[in-house]
Amino acid sequence: MAALEGLIEALRRLPGVGQKSAQRMAYHLLQHDREGASNLARSLAEAVAEVRHCQRCNTFTEDPVCATCLDGARDGALLCVVETQADQAVLERTGSYHGYYFVLMGKLSPLDGVGARDIGLPALIERALDGLVQELVVATGFTAEGEVTAQVIAQALRPHGVKVTRLARGVPVGSELEYVDLGTIAHAYADRR
Amino acid sequence: MAALEGLIEALRRLPGVGQKSAQRMAYHLLQHDREGASNLARSLAEAVAEVRHCQRCNTFTEDPVCATCLDGARDGALLCVVETQADQAVLERTGSYHGYYFVLMGKLSPLDGVGARDIGLPALIERALDGLVQELVVATGFTAEGEVTAQVIAQALRPHGVKVTRLARGVPVGSELEYVDLGTIAHAYADRR
Repeated sequence: MAALEGLIEALRRLPGVGQKSAQRMAYHLLQHDREGASNLARSLAEAVAEVRHCQRCNTFTEDPVCATCLDGARDGALLCVVETQADQAVLERTGSYHGYYFVLMGKLSPLDGVGARDIGLPALIERALDGLVQELVVATGFTAEGEVTAQVIAQALRPHGVKVTRLARGVPVGSELEYVDLGTIAHAYADRR
Repeated sequence: MAALEGLIEALRRLPGVGQKSAQRMAYHLLQHDREGASNLARSLAEAVAEVRHCQRCNTFTEDPVCATCLDGARDGALLCVVETQADQAVLERTGSYHGYYFVLMGKLSPLDGVGARDIGLPALIERALDGLVQELVVATGFTAEGEVTAQVIAQALRPHGVKVTRLARGVPVGSELEYVDLGTIAHAYADRR
Protein backbone atom coordinates (compact mmCIF):
# COMPACT_ATOMS: atom_id res chain seq x y z
CA MET A 1 0.00 0.00 0.00
CA ALA A 2 2.87 2.37 -0.79
CA ALA A 3 0.65 4.81 -2.74
CA LEU A 4 -1.98 5.14 0.02
CA GLU A 5 0.65 5.41 2.76
CA GLY A 6 2.52 7.99 0.72
CA LEU A 7 -0.62 10.05 0.26
CA ILE A 8 -1.41 9.97 4.00
CA GLU A 9 2.19 10.98 4.76
CA ALA A 10 2.00 13.88 2.27
CA LEU A 11 -1.33 15.10 3.68
CA ARG A 12 0.15 15.09 7.21
CA ARG A 13 2.52 17.86 6.17
CA LEU A 14 -0.42 20.24 5.84
CA PRO A 15 -0.73 22.56 8.86
CA GLY A 16 -3.28 21.35 11.40
CA VAL A 17 -3.55 17.86 9.90
CA GLY A 18 -2.59 14.87 12.08
CA GLN A 19 -2.55 11.15 11.38
CA LYS A 20 -6.32 10.60 11.78
CA SER A 21 -7.31 13.61 9.67
CA ALA A 22 -4.83 12.61 6.97
CA GLN A 23 -6.30 9.09 6.85
CA ARG A 24 -9.82 10.48 6.67
CA MET A 25 -8.85 12.85 3.86
CA ALA A 26 -7.09 10.12 1.88
CA TYR A 27 -10.03 7.70 2.22
CA HIS A 28 -12.51 10.40 1.33
CA LEU A 29 -10.61 11.42 -1.80
CA LEU A 30 -10.05 7.86 -3.01
CA GLN A 31 -13.53 6.60 -2.13
CA HIS A 32 -15.76 9.56 -2.92
CA ASP A 33 -13.87 12.28 -4.78
CA ARG A 34 -11.12 11.07 -7.12
CA GLU A 35 -11.88 14.01 -9.36
CA GLY A 36 -11.23 16.32 -6.39
CA ALA A 37 -7.95 14.52 -5.75
CA SER A 38 -6.81 14.97 -9.36
CA ASN A 39 -7.96 18.56 -9.27
CA LEU A 40 -5.96 19.21 -6.06
CA ALA A 41 -2.88 17.59 -7.60
CA ARG A 42 -3.14 19.87 -10.66
CA SER A 43 -3.79 22.99 -8.53
CA LEU A 44 -0.79 22.28 -6.32
CA ALA A 45 1.55 21.79 -9.27
CA GLU A 46 0.22 24.91 -10.96
CA ALA A 47 0.52 27.07 -7.82
CA VAL A 48 4.07 25.86 -7.14
CA ALA A 49 5.01 26.70 -10.73
CA GLU A 50 3.16 30.03 -11.06
CA VAL A 51 2.94 31.76 -7.69
CA ARG A 52 5.88 34.00 -6.77
CA HIS A 53 6.45 37.09 -4.62
CA CYS A 54 5.68 40.60 -5.84
CA GLN A 55 8.97 42.45 -6.37
CA ARG A 56 7.61 45.54 -4.65
CA CYS A 57 5.32 44.40 -1.83
CA ASN A 58 6.33 40.74 -1.34
CA THR A 59 2.75 39.42 -1.61
CA PHE A 60 1.87 36.31 -3.63
CA THR A 61 1.32 37.05 -7.30
CA GLU A 62 1.69 35.37 -10.68
CA ASP A 63 3.23 38.51 -12.20
CA PRO A 64 6.55 40.23 -11.41
CA VAL A 65 4.61 43.06 -9.72
CA CYS A 66 1.12 42.63 -8.24
CA ALA A 67 -2.02 44.51 -9.30
CA THR A 68 -2.12 46.62 -6.11
CA CYS A 69 1.44 47.85 -6.61
CA LEU A 70 0.64 48.67 -10.25
CA ASP A 71 -2.37 50.78 -9.21
CA GLY A 72 -1.17 54.33 -10.00
CA ALA A 73 -4.11 55.96 -8.21
CA ARG A 74 -2.73 55.14 -4.76
CA ASP A 75 -0.81 57.53 -2.51
CA GLY A 76 2.90 56.75 -2.85
CA ALA A 77 3.70 58.60 0.38
CA LEU A 78 1.93 55.93 2.44
CA LEU A 79 3.21 52.37 2.96
CA CYS A 80 1.33 49.98 5.22
CA VAL A 81 3.05 46.88 6.63
CA VAL A 82 0.81 43.84 7.21
CA GLU A 83 1.57 40.28 8.20
CA THR A 84 -0.55 38.52 5.59
CA GLN A 85 -2.66 39.05 2.47
CA ALA A 86 -5.72 38.37 4.63
CA ASP A 87 -4.82 41.36 6.85
CA GLN A 88 -4.31 43.47 3.72
CA ALA A 89 -7.76 42.42 2.44
CA VAL A 90 -9.36 43.51 5.74
CA LEU A 91 -7.73 46.94 5.53
CA GLU A 92 -8.81 47.31 1.90
CA ARG A 93 -12.40 46.49 2.84
CA THR A 94 -12.47 49.34 5.38
CA GLY A 95 -12.01 51.75 2.45
CA SER A 96 -10.04 54.09 4.74
CA TYR A 97 -6.51 53.43 3.45
CA HIS A 98 -5.37 54.45 -0.02
CA GLY A 99 -1.61 53.90 0.01
CA TYR A 100 0.57 50.92 -0.92
CA TYR A 101 1.33 47.81 1.09
CA PHE A 102 4.22 45.64 2.13
CA VAL A 103 3.25 42.08 3.06
CA LEU A 104 5.69 40.44 5.48
CA MET A 105 4.20 36.97 4.87
CA GLY A 106 4.74 36.21 8.55
CA LYS A 107 5.97 37.83 11.74
CA LEU A 108 9.12 37.64 13.80
CA SER A 109 9.02 34.57 16.00
CA PRO A 110 12.50 33.76 17.33
CA LEU A 111 11.18 30.73 19.25
CA ASP A 112 10.03 29.19 15.95
CA GLY A 113 13.26 30.21 14.21
CA VAL A 114 11.55 32.95 12.17
CA GLY A 115 14.03 35.82 11.91
CA ALA A 116 14.15 39.21 10.17
CA ARG A 117 15.30 37.75 6.86
CA ASP A 118 12.47 35.14 6.77
CA ILE A 119 9.83 37.83 6.84
CA GLY A 120 11.48 40.06 4.26
CA LEU A 121 12.58 42.89 6.58
CA PRO A 122 15.59 43.85 4.41
CA ALA A 123 13.27 44.19 1.40
CA LEU A 124 10.83 46.26 3.47
CA ILE A 125 13.58 48.65 4.57
CA GLU A 126 14.80 49.07 1.00
CA ARG A 127 11.22 49.70 -0.14
CA ALA A 128 10.53 52.22 2.64
CA LEU A 129 13.66 54.20 1.78
CA ASP A 130 12.77 54.67 -1.91
CA GLY A 131 12.44 58.43 -1.34
CA LEU A 132 8.67 58.52 -1.92
CA VAL A 133 7.43 56.93 1.31
CA GLN A 134 6.81 59.51 4.04
CA GLU A 135 4.80 57.48 6.50
CA LEU A 136 5.06 53.78 7.30
CA VAL A 137 1.85 52.50 8.92
CA VAL A 138 2.67 49.35 10.87
CA ALA A 139 -0.44 47.14 10.92
CA THR A 140 1.03 43.93 12.31
CA GLY A 141 -1.18 42.10 14.82
CA PHE A 142 -1.48 43.08 18.47
CA THR A 143 -0.05 39.76 19.60
CA ALA A 144 3.34 39.33 21.28
CA GLU A 145 5.02 38.48 17.95
CA GLY A 146 3.16 41.21 16.09
CA GLU A 147 4.25 43.82 18.64
CA VAL A 148 7.89 42.72 18.53
CA THR A 149 7.81 42.81 14.74
CA ALA A 150 6.39 46.35 14.86
CA GLN A 151 9.12 47.48 17.26
CA VAL A 152 11.91 46.00 15.15
CA ILE A 153 10.54 47.72 12.04
CA ALA A 154 10.23 51.06 13.86
CA GLN A 155 13.80 50.80 15.24
CA ALA A 156 15.16 50.01 11.78
CA LEU A 157 13.42 52.90 10.00
CA ARG A 158 13.15 55.80 12.49
CA PRO A 159 16.92 56.64 12.20
CA HIS A 160 16.37 57.15 8.47
CA GLY A 161 13.80 59.87 9.10
CA VAL A 162 10.76 57.83 8.01
CA LYS A 163 7.67 58.56 10.11
CA VAL A 164 6.54 55.23 11.58
CA THR A 165 2.98 54.96 12.95
CA ARG A 166 1.01 52.06 14.40
CA LEU A 167 -2.71 51.28 14.22
CA ALA A 168 -4.43 52.53 17.39
CA ARG A 169 -5.21 50.11 20.17
CA GLY A 170 -8.54 50.64 21.87
CA VAL A 171 -12.02 49.43 22.60
CA PRO A 172 -13.59 47.59 19.63
CA VAL A 173 -16.59 49.33 18.08
CA GLY A 174 -19.80 47.89 19.52
CA SER A 175 -18.19 46.68 22.76
CA GLU A 176 -19.48 47.07 26.31
CA LEU A 177 -16.53 48.22 28.46
CA GLU A 178 -17.49 45.58 31.03
CA TYR A 179 -16.50 42.76 28.66
CA VAL A 180 -13.28 44.25 27.28
CA ASP A 181 -9.99 42.99 28.74
CA LEU A 182 -8.04 45.28 31.10
CA GLY A 183 -4.99 45.64 28.86
CA THR A 184 -7.18 47.00 26.06
CA ILE A 185 -8.92 49.43 28.45
CA ALA A 186 -5.54 50.62 29.74
CA HIS A 187 -4.30 51.26 26.19
CA ALA A 188 -7.57 52.97 25.26
CA TYR A 189 -7.14 55.26 28.28
CA ALA A 190 -3.50 56.03 27.49
CA ASP A 191 -4.32 56.77 23.84
CA ARG A 192 -7.47 58.80 24.64
CA ARG A 193 -8.22 61.72 22.31
CA MET B 1 -4.25 35.23 -8.61
CA ALA B 2 -6.01 32.37 -10.42
CA ALA B 3 -3.44 29.75 -9.34
CA LEU B 4 -3.65 30.65 -5.63
CA GLU B 5 -7.46 30.90 -5.70
CA GLY B 6 -7.63 27.57 -7.52
CA LEU B 7 -5.43 25.92 -4.91
CA ILE B 8 -7.55 27.28 -2.03
CA GLU B 9 -10.71 26.06 -3.80
CA ALA B 10 -9.20 22.60 -4.33
CA LEU B 11 -8.09 22.35 -0.68
CA ARG B 12 -11.62 23.24 0.47
CA ARG B 13 -12.90 19.99 -1.02
CA LEU B 14 -10.96 18.07 1.63
CA PRO B 15 -13.23 16.87 4.46
CA GLY B 16 -13.13 19.16 7.51
CA VAL B 17 -11.40 22.02 5.65
CA GLY B 18 -13.19 25.37 5.40
CA GLN B 19 -12.19 28.65 3.77
CA LYS B 20 -9.83 29.81 6.54
CA SER B 21 -8.06 26.44 6.86
CA ALA B 22 -7.69 26.19 3.09
CA GLN B 23 -6.11 29.68 2.96
CA ARG B 24 -3.77 28.79 5.82
CA MET B 25 -2.75 25.55 4.09
CA ALA B 26 -2.16 27.26 0.73
CA TYR B 27 -0.06 30.05 2.30
CA HIS B 28 1.91 27.56 4.35
CA LEU B 29 2.69 25.36 1.35
CA LEU B 30 3.69 28.27 -0.92
CA GLN B 31 5.61 30.19 1.71
CA HIS B 32 7.30 27.47 3.73
CA ASP B 33 6.96 24.08 2.07
CA ARG B 34 6.89 24.10 -1.73
CA GLU B 35 8.62 20.74 -1.67
CA GLY B 36 5.72 19.42 0.44
CA ALA B 37 3.26 20.85 -2.06
CA SER B 38 4.99 19.16 -4.99
CA ASN B 39 5.22 15.96 -2.98
CA LEU B 40 1.48 16.08 -2.20
CA ALA B 41 0.68 16.71 -5.87
CA ARG B 42 2.71 13.65 -6.88
CA SER B 43 1.23 11.47 -4.11
CA LEU B 44 -2.32 12.42 -5.09
CA ALA B 45 -1.76 11.64 -8.75
CA GLU B 46 -0.07 8.35 -7.90
CA ALA B 47 -2.79 7.27 -5.47
CA VAL B 48 -5.56 8.13 -7.94
CA ALA B 49 -3.76 6.09 -10.60
CA GLU B 50 -2.70 3.11 -8.46
CA VAL B 51 -5.19 2.56 -5.64
CA ARG B 52 -8.15 0.33 -6.46
CA HIS B 53 -10.47 -1.98 -4.51
CA CYS B 54 -9.53 -5.55 -3.61
CA GLN B 55 -11.66 -7.92 -5.71
CA ARG B 56 -12.34 -10.12 -2.67
CA CYS B 57 -12.62 -7.82 0.38
CA ASN B 58 -13.21 -4.37 -1.20
CA THR B 59 -10.37 -2.71 0.75
CA PHE B 60 -7.94 -0.28 -0.89
CA THR B 61 -5.04 -2.04 -2.57
CA GLU B 62 -2.65 -1.57 -5.48
CA ASP B 63 -3.04 -5.20 -6.55
CA PRO B 64 -6.10 -7.05 -7.86
CA VAL B 65 -6.35 -8.91 -4.53
CA CYS B 66 -4.93 -7.53 -1.24
CA ALA B 67 -2.27 -9.19 0.91
CA THR B 68 -4.74 -10.15 3.66
CA CYS B 69 -6.99 -11.99 1.20
CA LEU B 70 -3.95 -13.78 -0.26
CA ASP B 71 -2.89 -14.99 3.22
CA GLY B 72 -3.64 -18.75 2.97
CA ALA B 73 -3.08 -19.31 6.71
CA ARG B 74 -6.39 -17.66 7.64
CA ASP B 75 -9.62 -19.49 8.44
CA GLY B 76 -11.83 -19.41 5.34
CA ALA B 77 -14.93 -20.25 7.38
CA LEU B 78 -14.82 -16.86 9.10
CA LEU B 79 -15.62 -13.55 7.39
CA CYS B 80 -15.62 -10.30 9.39
CA VAL B 81 -17.43 -7.21 8.08
CA VAL B 82 -15.88 -3.86 9.05
CA GLU B 83 -16.66 -0.30 8.01
CA THR B 84 -13.10 0.84 7.32
CA GLN B 85 -9.50 -0.33 7.04
CA ALA B 86 -8.85 1.42 10.36
CA ASP B 87 -11.43 -0.83 12.06
CA GLN B 88 -9.82 -3.84 10.41
CA ALA B 89 -6.42 -2.75 11.73
CA VAL B 90 -7.80 -2.53 15.28
CA LEU B 91 -9.23 -6.05 15.08
CA GLU B 92 -5.94 -7.36 13.69
CA ARG B 93 -4.03 -5.79 16.58
CA THR B 94 -6.17 -7.67 19.13
CA GLY B 95 -4.72 -10.89 17.71
CA SER B 96 -7.99 -12.66 18.50
CA TYR B 97 -9.40 -12.95 14.96
CA HIS B 98 -7.85 -15.16 12.29
CA GLY B 99 -10.41 -15.18 9.46
CA TYR B 100 -10.84 -12.99 6.39
CA TYR B 101 -12.40 -9.55 6.12
CA PHE B 102 -14.85 -7.62 4.02
CA VAL B 103 -14.38 -3.85 4.17
CA LEU B 104 -17.57 -1.90 3.43
CA MET B 105 -15.68 1.39 3.00
CA GLY B 106 -18.58 3.16 4.69
CA LYS B 107 -21.90 2.45 6.33
CA LEU B 108 -25.53 2.82 5.33
CA SER B 109 -26.63 6.40 5.79
CA PRO B 110 -29.88 7.07 3.90
CA LEU B 111 -29.95 10.69 5.07
CA ASP B 112 -26.60 11.29 3.35
CA GLY B 113 -27.70 9.33 0.29
CA VAL B 114 -25.43 6.36 1.08
CA GLY B 115 -27.32 3.22 0.08
CA ALA B 116 -26.59 -0.51 -0.04
CA ARG B 117 -24.81 -0.33 -3.39
CA ASP B 118 -22.48 2.49 -2.25
CA ILE B 119 -21.05 0.36 0.53
CA GLY B 120 -20.64 -2.77 -1.58
CA LEU B 121 -23.41 -4.85 0.00
CA PRO B 122 -24.06 -6.85 -3.20
CA ALA B 123 -20.36 -7.78 -3.35
CA LEU B 124 -20.43 -8.74 0.35
CA ILE B 125 -23.42 -11.04 -0.16
CA GLU B 126 -21.75 -12.70 -3.13
CA ARG B 127 -18.56 -13.14 -1.12
CA ALA B 128 -20.41 -14.54 1.94
CA LEU B 129 -22.19 -17.12 -0.23
CA ASP B 130 -19.01 -18.58 -1.74
CA GLY B 131 -19.69 -21.90 0.03
CA LEU B 132 -16.72 -21.61 2.39
CA VAL B 133 -17.95 -18.95 4.79
CA GLN B 134 -19.81 -20.44 7.77
CA GLU B 135 -19.90 -17.45 10.10
CA LEU B 136 -20.18 -13.78 9.24
CA VAL B 137 -18.95 -11.62 12.14
CA VAL B 138 -20.51 -8.16 11.77
CA ALA B 139 -18.12 -5.64 13.34
CA THR B 140 -19.68 -2.40 12.13
CA GLY B 141 -19.74 0.41 14.71
CA PHE B 142 -22.28 0.67 17.51
CA THR B 143 -23.63 3.93 16.15
CA ALA B 144 -27.11 4.36 14.67
CA GLU B 145 -25.78 3.89 11.11
CA GLY B 146 -23.52 1.01 12.12
CA GLU B 147 -26.44 -0.81 13.77
CA VAL B 148 -28.71 -0.32 10.77
CA THR B 149 -25.95 -1.56 8.48
CA ALA B 150 -25.52 -4.65 10.68
CA GLN B 151 -29.26 -5.36 10.61
CA VAL B 152 -29.49 -5.02 6.83
CA ILE B 153 -26.53 -7.40 6.41
CA ALA B 154 -28.07 -9.94 8.81
CA GLN B 155 -31.45 -9.77 7.06
CA ALA B 156 -29.83 -10.31 3.67
CA LEU B 157 -27.74 -13.31 4.70
CA ARG B 158 -29.69 -15.23 7.37
CA PRO B 159 -32.19 -16.63 4.78
CA HIS B 160 -29.22 -18.22 2.97
CA GLY B 161 -28.26 -20.19 6.06
CA VAL B 162 -25.12 -18.17 6.90
CA LYS B 163 -24.61 -17.77 10.67
CA VAL B 164 -24.43 -14.02 11.33
CA THR B 165 -22.93 -12.84 14.63
CA ARG B 166 -22.25 -9.39 16.05
CA LEU B 167 -19.45 -8.15 18.34
CA ALA B 168 -20.70 -8.09 21.95
CA ARG B 169 -21.85 -4.83 23.47
CA GLY B 170 -20.84 -4.31 27.06
CA VAL B 171 -18.81 -2.45 29.62
CA PRO B 172 -15.36 -1.41 28.30
CA VAL B 173 -12.42 -3.09 30.02
CA GLY B 174 -11.05 -0.82 32.78
CA SER B 175 -14.33 1.09 33.26
CA GLU B 176 -16.03 1.99 36.53
CA LEU B 177 -19.73 1.14 36.14
CA GLU B 178 -20.57 4.56 37.58
CA TYR B 179 -19.20 6.35 34.52
CA VAL B 180 -20.62 4.06 31.81
CA ASP B 181 -23.75 5.24 29.98
CA LEU B 182 -27.06 3.55 30.79
CA GLY B 183 -27.61 2.05 27.32
CA THR B 184 -24.29 0.22 27.55
CA ILE B 185 -25.10 -1.07 31.06
CA ALA B 186 -28.52 -2.27 29.86
CA HIS B 187 -26.92 -4.16 26.95
CA ALA B 188 -24.23 -5.58 29.21
CA TYR B 189 -26.97 -6.86 31.54
CA ALA B 190 -29.02 -8.34 28.68
CA ASP B 191 -25.94 -10.06 27.21
CA ARG B 192 -24.62 -11.26 30.60
CA ARG B 193 -22.83 -14.62 30.59
